[in-house]
Amino acid sequence: MDKKQPIGVFDSGAGGLSVLKQFIRFLPYESYIYLGDTARVPYGNKSEETVKRYARECTKFLVDKGVKLIVAACNTVSSVAMDSVREMTDLPVIGMIDPAAGASLRETVTKKIGVIGTRATINSGAYTTAINELADGEPVKVFSQACPLFVPIVEEGWIRHPATKMIAEEYLADFKKEGVDTLVLGCTHYPLMGQLFMEIMPGISLIDSGEHAAVTAIRHLAERKALIDEKNEFVKKPEIRFFVTDVPSFFFDTAKRFLGFPVESPEKIDIGSIRL
Amino acid sequence: MDKKQPIGVFDSGAGGLSVLKQFIRFLPYESYIYLGDTARVPYGNKSEETVKRYARECTKFLVDKGVKLIVAACNTVSSVAMDSVREMTDLPVIGMIDPAAGASLRETVTKKIGVIGTRATINSGAYTTAINELADGEPVKVFSQACPLFVPIVEEGWIRHPATKMIAEEYLADFKKEGVDTLVLGCTHYPLMGQLFMEIMPGISLIDSGEHAAVTAIRHLAERKALIDEKNEFVKKPEIRFFVTDVPSFFFDTAKRFLGFPVESPEKIDIGSIRL
Repeated sequence: MDKKQPIGVFDSGAGGLSVLKQFIRFLPYESYIYLGDTARVPYGNKSEETVKRYARECTKFLVDKGVKLIVAACNTVSSVAMDSVREMTDLPVIGMIDPAAGASLRETVTKKIGVIGTRATINSGAYTTAINELADGEPVKVFSQACPLFVPIVEEGWIRHPATKMIAEEYLADFKKEGVDTLVLGCTHYPLMGQLFMEIMPGISLIDSGEHAAVTAIRHLAERKALIDEKNEFVKKPEIRFFVTDVPSFFFDTAKRFLGFPVESPEKIDIGSIRL
Repeated sequence: MDKKQPIGVFDSGAGGLSVLKQFIRFLPYESYIYLGDTARVPYGNKSEETVKRYARECTKFLVDKGVKLIVAACNTVSSVAMDSVREMTDLPVIGMIDPAAGASLRETVTKKIGVIGTRATINSGAYTTAINELADGEPVKVFSQACPLFVPIVEEGWIRHPATKMIAEEYLADFKKEGVDTLVLGCTHYPLMGQLFMEIMPGISLIDSGEHAAVTAIRHLAERKALIDEKNEFVKKPEIRFFVTDVPSFFFDTAKRFLGFPVESPEKIDIGSIRL
């Protein structure tokens, strides 16, 4: 493994850019390849079989690009298709579930953890299973709630709308009643709603999957002596190549909102025809 | 053209089933082939180029199945890709736009028509263009409003939620102010919200694209002497074959809500690899 190889990050669309943002925050000297499967987004309402096929195609694309580590920056893939990703490569692979599950256990005092996500992620039970496994017998209660309206609300930009607060209050009502003190944001869109969640549940600890995935990546790469050396170039722009399977008109606005800076000239590719 | 050939209906997903429902209501003795491209749904947030490719693939599939008429039961395809559908076939082709545009002109008294749809449909300006063309110089004012939150709300089943009423009131506020008396439901999900729209705008005339597309189909087929003869078999179940590109777990519930009766054993197919 060569230090100079890029880190590969993929998602069904632009949501994974909130994960890439956390990687850049912690690993600014690395170079990155981001793949958004924007021609087939979203994955969350597709069958497991189809999500697995898409995950294999995304992984193959990144492997062929010569990345040193693969980040499945998509909660749906992380919930149901990590085996499919791993079967395509021997590279280290990081999903969204385990890093956040571990972080939530470290954070909670009441031992009551709430998990929110898309219906696919919540129905998979992946977070609950991971938290209970990592708890290893320690008593912990996991409450989960599918919040299918949050992704469209974030994409509509209605995060501060009074209707959004009503919807969020309803989705989070059981968590408040149960004394949940730690909330896992089990969808890459949700970090943008963090402030609202804190207003509704004052004192809550929010767990951002992207942040903990980035920290996990540091460990994986450091163990393999594959981290780029730290430098004192604080103004250098991160080196990122963006690949997408479609470039809809609103892509640039959405990308900027998730990433914090504009995505310039994404390269359009076709991965549906990749030979696996 | 043989009377016995089926009518082909396609959509990016299950929404087109609200259109199929209207066809069955008016043409119960026909047989149908429905294609839902559920592996790549939704189309509304994809680029025009990608939507056109998907529309050609769907059309090719229906043509190969030997249909006698093609219904693009998808407002996105109808807005930006009707030429792509027509370039694949000499069969009569019906989209969502023109039938509803004509109906809205016949309905309005104040000559102020409101159009709601997904962002893609509204941004295309397809309804406004069609209404103005059909008006042929008659003074008419078209107001349009993208309502990206309605599709996820219908799919979440939160049609009667108080937050939904707040959201709908906001989306429709300008129409009320302007004296709009006719509302074009420019998305196949919206007929399920009709009652709420009537509560917010009492006296409003709702235009359901599927209903008017079905009436247009009667004319097209009758002109070609290709309508199945009417029968007195009032209890006969309509003959429909359902094809989908993916079968997600919630497909059956959604389908039943749109269609009014259950979809049994949809056939899963791959159209991404169709040679055009």
